[in-house]
Amino acid sequence: MAGNNKGKLFIISAPRGSGKTTLCNMLMKKYPSIRYSISYTTRKPRNNEVHGKDYFFTDKETFKAMTENNEFLEWAEVHGNFYGTSKIQIDNALESGTDIILDIDPQGAMQMKEKVTTATYIFITAPSFNELKSRLINRGTESDEHISLRMENAKKEVEFFKFYDYLIVNDATDVAFNQLESIYLAEKLRTTQYSNVLEFMNI
Amino acid sequence: MAGNNKGKLFIISAPRGSGKTTLCNMLMKKYPSIRYSISYTTRKPRNNEVHGKDYFFTDKETFKAMTENNEFLEWAEVHGNFYGTSKIQIDNALESGTDIILDIDPQGAMQMKEKVTTATYIFITAPSFNELKSRLINRGTESDEHISLRMENAKKEVEFFKFYDYLIVNDATDVAFNQLESIYLAEKLRTTQYSNVLEFMNI
Repeated sequence: MAGNNKGKLFIISAPRGSGKTTLCNMLMKKYPSIRYSISYTTRKPRNNEVHGKDYFFTDKETFKAMTENNEFLEWAEVHGNFYGTSKIQIDNALESGTDIILDIDPQGAMQMKEKVTTATYIFITAPSFNELKSRLINRGTESDEHISLRMENAKKEVEFFKFYDYLIVNDATDVAFNQLESIYLAEKLRTTQYSNVLEFMNI
Repeated sequence: MAGNNKGKLFIISAPRGSGKTTLCNMLMKKYPSIRYSISYTTRKPRNNEVHGKDYFFTDKETFKAMTENNEFLEWAEVHGNFYGTSKIQIDNALESGTDIILDIDPQGAMQMKEKVTTATYIFITAPSFNELKSRLINRGTESDEHISLRMENAKKEVEFFKFYDYLIVNDATDVAFNQLESIYLAEKLRTTQYSNVLEFMNI
């Protein structure tokens, strides 16, 4: 579309079990111009993980220098490893017309929101805490203790929903996907995507 | 959807020939909970026009008193007749869960924007001024002089597009309708539609 070729950044948060990954994968399959943001991390690569695809792997000294140079939009320490979202990586992708999904927890999203006002903030959740718990149990991959912890986290996370632009209550995957797709398509039509009239009236 | 039952106001502007009426009618046909805002007017009813459906017909004294009581979100004088959008009519419709389309020119939209920050502002246009002119000529309903006037107006109107939230460049009706529908569905998912977490987590 004339003039509307800048990429758009989508910050998506959801409690574990909300169906976020499924929905995002469906969206990226339908719209190949969307991809996940790639984080920097100081943790070691696991089997099959590829530098520049799954993560940018780096060492603690480099990571620390990057934080001091304000090169990250947000960063966090998890179990002794550092993870961060590079500002220049995001900027370059958007400039080239790529749409980016940044899958991040509410604390990270709040850090982003102070710096990136042009991004779209989406919160996804299951229709109830009971449903969320059932889904986690049905996965069969988590211990009872882990599930209790996930539920505690979920209760804290949903309190942040007001800081997001959109809320998707994922009751049925096809409906929720339609909602996510609508948000994606609508956000690409924002007037902020255009710099002037001449861009779209083909003068 | 639990908690998300408030109506939403959509302010739509478009130069004549952009296809706005067709697109809005398609949207209202698919989503019967949407209806046009009904204006107050001091002009006399034409054939078949129904009070309370096409317009609220009123006299100049009543209209003047309403402007003095700040009962209008916006109003204008056109060819000696007054037209206005009643705040309480809009509020009541939204409160009852009806979504409202207000079809209005950019001057009116700018008046609205000062007062109504929760509305969604959409600008629709043809892909070029040449295309706009061709469409007006093809309608065969307007004189050359009128078409020149419409084109002058169109050039002024599109300059306002930055004040709107969304821009639809209507090149093909099916694509433009899909875009309008996406905006409608997305805006119904705004977190501002919910007052708290308890509303959507069914606690």
